[in-house]
Amino acid sequence: MAKDMTLLWGSGSPPCWRVMIALEEKNLQGYNQKVFSFEKMEHKSKEVMDLNPRGQLPAFKHGDKVLNESYAACMYLESQFKSQGSKLIPDCPAEQALMYQRMFEGLTLNQKMADVIYYNWKVPEGERHDSAVKRNREALSTEVKLWERYLQKASGSFLAGKNFSLADVVVYPSIAYLYRFGLCEERYPKLAAYYNSLKDRPSIKTSWPPTWLENPQGQDLLKDI
Amino acid sequence: MAKDMTLLWGSGSPPCWRVMIALEEKNLQGYNQKVFSFEKMEHKSKEVMDLNPRGQLPAFKHGDKVLNESYAACMYLESQFKSQGSKLIPDCPAEQALMYQRMFEGLTLNQKMADVIYYNWKVPEGERHDSAVKRNREALSTEVKLWERYLQKASGSFLAGKNFSLADVVVYPSIAYLYRFGLCEERYPKLAAYYNSLKDRPSIKTSWPPTWLENPQGQDLLKDI
Repeated sequence: MAKDMTLLWGSGSPPCWRVMIALEEKNLQGYNQKVFSFEKMEHKSKEVMDLNPRGQLPAFKHGDKVLNESYAACMYLESQFKSQGSKLIPDCPAEQALMYQRMFEGLTLNQKMADVIYYNWKVPEGERHDSAVKRNREALSTEVKLWERYLQKASGSFLAGKNFSLADVVVYPSIAYLYRFGLCEERYPKLAAYYNSLKDRPSIKTSWPPTWLENPQGQDLLKDI
Repeated sequence: MAKDMTLLWGSGSPPCWRVMIALEEKNLQGYNQKVFSFEKMEHKSKEVMDLNPRGQLPAFKHGDKVLNESYAACMYLESQFKSQGSKLIPDCPAEQALMYQRMFEGLTLNQKMADVIYYNWKVPEGERHDSAVKRNREALSTEVKLWERYLQKASGSFLAGKNFSLADVVVYPSIAYLYRFGLCEERYPKLAAYYNSLKDRPSIKTSWPPTWLENPQGQDLLKDI
């Protein structure tokens, strides 16, 4: 039981979900946790800011060690609990290289997705331009096509080969987010197959965003991407 | 001699510089290398695109393993050459946690810096707003103050404590970039001390951007940050 760990999180946030998947994969259940609402701006509450001065979720603590960056938390958990639960970094140099490469490309995928989904939230009204919206959507489309090709050429069912790895831990939430916001399954069949095949993996199923379960209807913002 | 490695890079680019520092720290000299000019758009040349379809530098290869994301290359090099050269990931859990946390916060520092420095390059003329420039500059100022505080409170001379680590490998180039673009040394004394103390570290000195050596005069874009 991970009683010496605390996770503050928000439902649906890919960075929060990454840490939750990593904790499940490493058999670190039973941690202290509290969910906050982004809509109510609770990520800027004192309770979150005390642990994460950036006012962002996740905020994560193991004993007195603070790991608020989701990639940092995932790397740390794999390193500290190497022989517990799933092995998330492959030994084979070729698989390991591919895993690291896909992990960090995942940040670009997530950024391009956020540029589209959060445009109106991030850009003040007087600074919005249809030309920027169009460019962001084209950039996301190019990015999603790249990932579809990666999966077409993949040598296994996972992002870095035959085994579930840290690349899946960190990128899967972004891919699920794309579908939550209406990405067309038929247009990206390999990505859809990957998305659907992992839905029932225990670490992912257990940590599925509760707000998505309560309201299964997503949005259609990305249906033409 | 790292004859089975190839690095395509551009002078001054923090991501390229990270990989070069990591290679030096791991005693991996003698790799194949070629420098490309961003100004001449050579990062979009066929030679780069063949290795990195994103048309970005660095492009890095070890044998047939491709690691174009700079963080991926650094993590991979440390993992594959663990006992060679500097040990870049501390064993102590507290230092390791801090190292990962700072590494990934470094991406935010670099992004906020890029939002200011590359604004006119990234945002088409008709979409530019003084309000956005002001907001980006304020965000960078807040971010730089955060790093100044981290160094004030640090328990050693490096970003994650008493030893040089991957956090320094990946964040130092961004900090050097800030000063290249005119950040005021007096306003951020701890950051300036960190910047200056590492200038002569062999891995950093050897890989110092050649265009900066040729033209020691930087810009003053950040002097009021």
